[in-house]
Amino acid sequence: MANWQDRPLILVCNDDGITAPGIRALIQTMNRLGDVVVVAPDSPQSGMGHAITLSSTLRCEPVHPDAGPQKEYACSGTPVDCVKLAVHALLDRKPDLVVSGINHGSNASVNVIYSGTMSAAVEGAMQGIPSIGFSLLDYRWDASFEACLPFVEQIAREALNGGMPAGTCLNVNFPKPEKAPYAGIKVCRQAQAKWVEEFDKREDPRGKTYYWLTGTFVNEDHGQDTDEWALANGYVSVVPVSYDLTAYASLGAWHNRLEP
Amino acid sequence: MANWQDRPLILVCNDDGITAPGIRALIQTMNRLGDVVVVAPDSPQSGMGHAITLSSTLRCEPVHPDAGPQKEYACSGTPVDCVKLAVHALLDRKPDLVVSGINHGSNASVNVIYSGTMSAAVEGAMQGIPSIGFSLLDYRWDASFEACLPFVEQIAREALNGGMPAGTCLNVNFPKPEKAPYAGIKVCRQAQAKWVEEFDKREDPRGKTYYWLTGTFVNEDHGQDTDEWALANGYVSVVPVSYDLTAYASLGAWHNRLEP
Repeated sequence: MANWQDRPLILVCNDDGITAPGIRALIQTMNRLGDVVVVAPDSPQSGMGHAITLSSTLRCEPVHPDAGPQKEYACSGTPVDCVKLAVHALLDRKPDLVVSGINHGSNASVNVIYSGTMSAAVEGAMQGIPSIGFSLLDYRWDASFEACLPFVEQIAREALNGGMPAGTCLNVNFPKPEKAPYAGIKVCRQAQAKWVEEFDKREDPRGKTYYWLTGTFVNEDHGQDTDEWALANGYVSVVPVSYDLTAYASLGAWHNRLEP
Repeated sequence: MANWQDRPLILVCNDDGITAPGIRALIQTMNRLGDVVVVAPDSPQSGMGHAITLSSTLRCEPVHPDAGPQKEYACSGTPVDCVKLAVHALLDRKPDLVVSGINHGSNASVNVIYSGTMSAAVEGAMQGIPSIGFSLLDYRWDASFEACLPFVEQIAREALNGGMPAGTCLNVNFPKPEKAPYAGIKVCRQAQAKWVEEFDKREDPRGKTYYWLTGTFVNEDHGQDTDEWALANGYVSVVPVSYDLTAYASLGAWHNRLEP
C-alpha cells in the first residue's frame, strides 16, 4: 500500500449512487493517480442540484464493493452532503482533488444547475479544493466509458499538477460513445440552451392526480464556442465553472433603477 | 375580481412551505400589484438548492389558507418543481413576475447556492420570467416582515414595469428587523464568504452512528460593494444573479493548459 503522505489524496463522489458503472470506471482511473477515498450516495441522487440535508439525519457506512485499494463510504445524503462529510468528518486531511461522476447523462449547458454530480464538484471548489465533474452523454447503465478514461486521466493530472483558480471547478462532458475516438478537448462556455418542459398528468388507482416532469432539450445558441457545439462535433467539452452568480454586466443598470 | 387580462399575473413560491409567515406577508403585498397564484411546497424545503423531482411522483392540490383573492396550490415537490409545475401545468398563461420568499434566514453570499428560495427565482429566470427572491436575516418563525414590505413592493413594481436582462434574476436580502428602519437599497455583488462546517456525530438508541451538519458563517471579503457589507450596515442588498456559471476569466488559461 502506498503511503498516504506521498501520494495525492483524491476524493471521488457522484450522483448516480456508489454502485453505478460510471463511478467504478472513475475510481479505477484515480487509483493510478493517488490514494482514493470514495464517499458517494447509497442511492441515485440525479437532479438533486446543490441540495443539502438539514432536517433529517445523515448516515455513512464503510463499504467494499470491489477488490481495489480505495476506501469507500456509502452515504444516505446528497452529493453535496457526501463532499462536506468527507472533508469535515471522514478524512484526516484535505483532499488534493475532488472528482465527481462519471455521470450517466449530460451535464452540459443549463444541466449544470440541476446536476448533483456537478454540485459535488462545485462544493469541492467551495471547500478550496481543485474539483472536476465528469459526464458521458449516454444514460444507459451499460454505457461504455472506455473512450473517456484517457481524457479523465489527462484532465485530473493537469488539475493535480497545476491547481485551479480559486472559486472555480471544471465541468467535463464526453460525446456519446458512438462518436469515439473523440476529436480532442475544447475549452468552452456554457451554451444558452434550455429544456422545453411538459408535465405528464396521470391518475393513481385511487383517482388522485399526480405528475411526472418530462421535457425536450433545445439549443438555440449557435455559437461555436459552447459546450453543446463541442459535444455535437465530437469534442470533449471543458467548461470552467464559478459559484459567484453575480450578474456583473447588469450591476450598473440596477444601480440606476433601484438606488435614488 | 379583477380581470386577469388587465392585471399582471404574479406567481409566488418559497422554500419554507406554503404556511410560513414569510410567504403570507409576500402574498399580501403582491395582491396589491396583480393577480396572484401561489404554488409552494406543502412542507419545508430549505437547503434544497436547485433540486428537481425525477424519481418520484409530484402531487399538487388547491388550498385556501386565508380569505385573500389569490389562488393557491400546495405541491409535494421542491421549490423548482413548484415553478415548473405552475408554468407548464397549472397556469393558463406565462406569469409576468415570479417572486419567492420571504425566506426566513439569509440567502446572501454563497447561501444563494443552497437556497431553495433563490433556486425558485433562478428557475423563473430560466423560464424567461422576471424573478426575485426575498429573504430576511431572521430565522424566527414569528419574525416581523413589516420593514421589508415597502421595499418588496418597490422592487417588484420596478421588475414589472422595466423587466430584467435575459438570464438573470434578483437576490434581495433584508437586514435583521432590529436594524429597521433600513438605510435604503444597495445593489451589490455576492460576497466571497463561506461556511466553516462541522459535523455533530451522534449515536442512535441502537448504537449506530449518524451526523448533523452544523457550521459558522465567516466573511473574509472586506469589499464594501458586497451583499454582506450592505446587510451589516443596515441596507437592503440586491444582487443580480445569473445562471451562466461559466468562469469567463479563466477560459484563456484553461485553453492553454488543455488544448494542444
